[in-house]
Amino acid sequence: MNEAGPPAGDFLSELRATLGDKGVVVEAGDMEPFLREWRGRFTDLKARCVALPHSSAQVAAVVKLCAKHRVPIVPQGGNTSLVASGVPFGGGDELILSLARMNRIRAVDPLNHTITVEAGCVLQTVQEAAAKVDRLFPLSLGAEGTCQIGGNLSTNAGGVNVLRYGNAREQVLGLEVVLPDGRVWDGLRALRKDNTGYDLKHLFIGAEGTLGIITAAVLKLYPLPRDVHTAFVALRDPAAAIELLARARGASGDRCTSFELIPRLTVDLVLRHVPGTTDPLDAPHDWYALIELSGPDADGDTGAVLESLLERAFEDGLVVDATIAQSAAQAAALWRIRETVSEGEAAAGASLKHDVAVPVSQVPAFIAAATPEIETALPGVRVMAFGHVGDGNVHFNLIQPEGMDRQAFYAEWPRLSTLVHDRVTAMSGSISAEHGIGHLKRDALPHYKSAVELDLMRTLKAALDPAGLMNPGKVL
Amino acid sequence: MNEAGPPAGDFLSELRATLGDKGVVVEAGDMEPFLREWRGRFTDLKARCVALPHSSAQVAAVVKLCAKHRVPIVPQGGNTSLVASGVPFGGGDELILSLARMNRIRAVDPLNHTITVEAGCVLQTVQEAAAKVDRLFPLSLGAEGTCQIGGNLSTNAGGVNVLRYGNAREQVLGLEVVLPDGRVWDGLRALRKDNTGYDLKHLFIGAEGTLGIITAAVLKLYPLPRDVHTAFVALRDPAAAIELLARARGASGDRCTSFELIPRLTVDLVLRHVPGTTDPLDAPHDWYALIELSGPDADGDTGAVLESLLERAFEDGLVVDATIAQSAAQAAALWRIRETVSEGEAAAGASLKHDVAVPVSQVPAFIAAATPEIETALPGVRVMAFGHVGDGNVHFNLIQPEGMDRQAFYAEWPRLSTLVHDRVTAMSGSISAEHGIGHLKRDALPHYKSAVELDLMRTLKAALDPAGLMNPGKVL
Repeated sequence: MNEAGPPAGDFLSELRATLGDKGVVVEAGDMEPFLREWRGRFTDLKARCVALPHSSAQVAAVVKLCAKHRVPIVPQGGNTSLVASGVPFGGGDELILSLARMNRIRAVDPLNHTITVEAGCVLQTVQEAAAKVDRLFPLSLGAEGTCQIGGNLSTNAGGVNVLRYGNAREQVLGLEVVLPDGRVWDGLRALRKDNTGYDLKHLFIGAEGTLGIITAAVLKLYPLPRDVHTAFVALRDPAAAIELLARARGASGDRCTSFELIPRLTVDLVLRHVPGTTDPLDAPHDWYALIELSGPDADGDTGAVLESLLERAFEDGLVVDATIAQSAAQAAALWRIRETVSEGEAAAGASLKHDVAVPVSQVPAFIAAATPEIETALPGVRVMAFGHVGDGNVHFNLIQPEGMDRQAFYAEWPRLSTLVHDRVTAMSGSISAEHGIGHLKRDALPHYKSAVELDLMRTLKAALDPAGLMNPGKVL
Repeated sequence: MNEAGPPAGDFLSELRATLGDKGVVVEAGDMEPFLREWRGRFTDLKARCVALPHSSAQVAAVVKLCAKHRVPIVPQGGNTSLVASGVPFGGGDELILSLARMNRIRAVDPLNHTITVEAGCVLQTVQEAAAKVDRLFPLSLGAEGTCQIGGNLSTNAGGVNVLRYGNAREQVLGLEVVLPDGRVWDGLRALRKDNTGYDLKHLFIGAEGTLGIITAAVLKLYPLPRDVHTAFVALRDPAAAIELLARARGASGDRCTSFELIPRLTVDLVLRHVPGTTDPLDAPHDWYALIELSGPDADGDTGAVLESLLERAFEDGLVVDATIAQSAAQAAALWRIRETVSEGEAAAGASLKHDVAVPVSQVPAFIAAATPEIETALPGVRVMAFGHVGDGNVHFNLIQPEGMDRQAFYAEWPRLSTLVHDRVTAMSGSISAEHGIGHLKRDALPHYKSAVELDLMRTLKAALDPAGLMNPGKVL
């Protein structure tokens, strides 16, 4: 595209006139942080420049300028995508549009339970602004100190609280979006109900910047839970986890905020490789669940509900051992096991990660079917099936056989991931539960989506971005 | 369109060959129930015929046939639209495609908390199928014994449980849709997480059949609440309602399932016109709230939470009197006041209804501003501002001045509703909170939507339904 457009100098000088010198980065060294791919799988990435607008009007001006000069745009938030969705692959053609300077909290309305934020707000900043007015913004995930809310919405992020509160998508009441032609759609409504035509916001949420650039959002807030109880539970088997989850939801009136499945292998790796972790239970067991119930106030019955739930499950043989945290410190120690899984994994060798989902009721059958398939395909491989089982979301990660060469193991990726994804698809599951498609899974997508669905997606892309300048090569 | 296409005889015989004789209705008398507009505002409606497919494949075949013969299609569910969305206005050109025979429950999965239903299932049937497996399907509204789930989804229905569970949209995990070209999109996924491309389901939900025909859906289920507590509360003023709502959400850990605002005028009309209703409190008050908290089991603390909430609100002057139902019969009596509002209204004379929403925190300001505007515009008019205040959804209904001629009052509709909608729009609200646009509000829409948003909607319509055969003249 570069060759076809007007001279690069014209474009850059117009861009500088639009954003000021501080708003445009062109030096290779200065661009480097924007070109770093989070998982380190892709290197030597190049961009034409980085634009740093500080208002929606500036974003719109940049997009118009890019449309005029036919410059492809890669929108970027905190650059923590796990599927390489926010970095350029165009060999230097593309402009990176970073939302980092658009980081104002525009409004907080505690009585409407809403907060209005710009796309560049770091997730943790949004959480903190909510807490200041005694409210909860429930989206929570590992990268929350770095990732930006615009990226969270563009990828429909998941995380640890989806069971109770839903994905990022479910937190949105309104959006402001700069369209591919540079017009601004002001859909920043703070309404719980609005049935006046097509729901446009859901089109842009999860579209990974391929249909437009989210510049601001009105998000839902919730009452702050003050009575949080955490248990680490040894289970009879994965099927017991699903039964216990249903009981926990029923017994607590859906106060169940987290339900994470963890196999023994994971606990072993964490205990071995992560300093300061200890085994919560006296003897080892094959499967565990980390369960959290969250009630409104410290005098409530949430703790009693959790105790009685586990007692009955123990009597019925679903649970074989359990510990309930008696303090915030003990709860943090239990969560530390879950939160350091990646650390333990990394120390154990190379790993191939699969972020898949099946219906919650099918999780045990999926693990039972996929595990031996993988173990047969590559003897010695260590299967770690853990994750947000309350959402049917299994992080089905494969750790290299001990002693195997790292690169030789990586070379097995296409074969092994095809096995995993075929099994998931046979069970009506998803090959990307919460991370998105981005660049990484784009080529796999056509094998797992119906022709009708792909065609619908292409129709929407062509209708909204006919020039194909928005985050090219991602998703489709 | 009729004139331009092939002879009607060809079309009808092909249609009969596709659906069988029972699947096609052409006699005027037999078509009459399908041509009746629910609110009775439109009469003398005409259709070419009514098609009654009993499978998605048959729906697809009908749509293909209509595409071939250029016959416009009006999809119809239970025909209870409040905005004339499911009836034809084409003077006899259109085919009504009724989903009534597609009424199977395809699957129930209690451990996945899902149910898979066909579009023609009556809402109450879905609720009952869920209850049979000890689960709740929370969508609940006045027409639930008649309306069909496909219509509920196509209009993104609201109802009395939105505060806790969200609108119809929020209940959907997957959809099956027959597209305008007759292809079937099988998006019947039962997944809590699936980030593999654009979210297509939200495009069809709330589109009122203008982009395709929803034929089946996977819906979310929830634990069945067994500890439901209902209070009828006299409030200091509408602002006290908003403060009490926030407190109720916080104190109960979001177990607040209903929060309905009711003015004294409404209670008066119900008591006067609806047999068997009694005033729940000793003395009259200007404003009331009907509040329901729903907990998991009868031994829980939900009742205590409600009592303590109201005690504190009484001490702080938000609540001036209150009664808590001590039995299911008492709770039903309290709900009867809310549920018979339309009946009381109808007995009091002609009424002009407005289904509007503003941010929850703005409800008091909206009522305070709009009421005197209307009273000044038409002296003697009786303003009834009631409804789902927990969602910011006010049914701002105007009852004719006593003694005024009914038709003369109806003639005031454009003037009065413009006043109401202008005020709503000035407060960043919605002119249709839960009923949709349909035929009734189509012409008003361009005055209240931005040009950018209307253009986006038209772009989507043109991309998905280029021939314009899907429910023409509705929404856009």
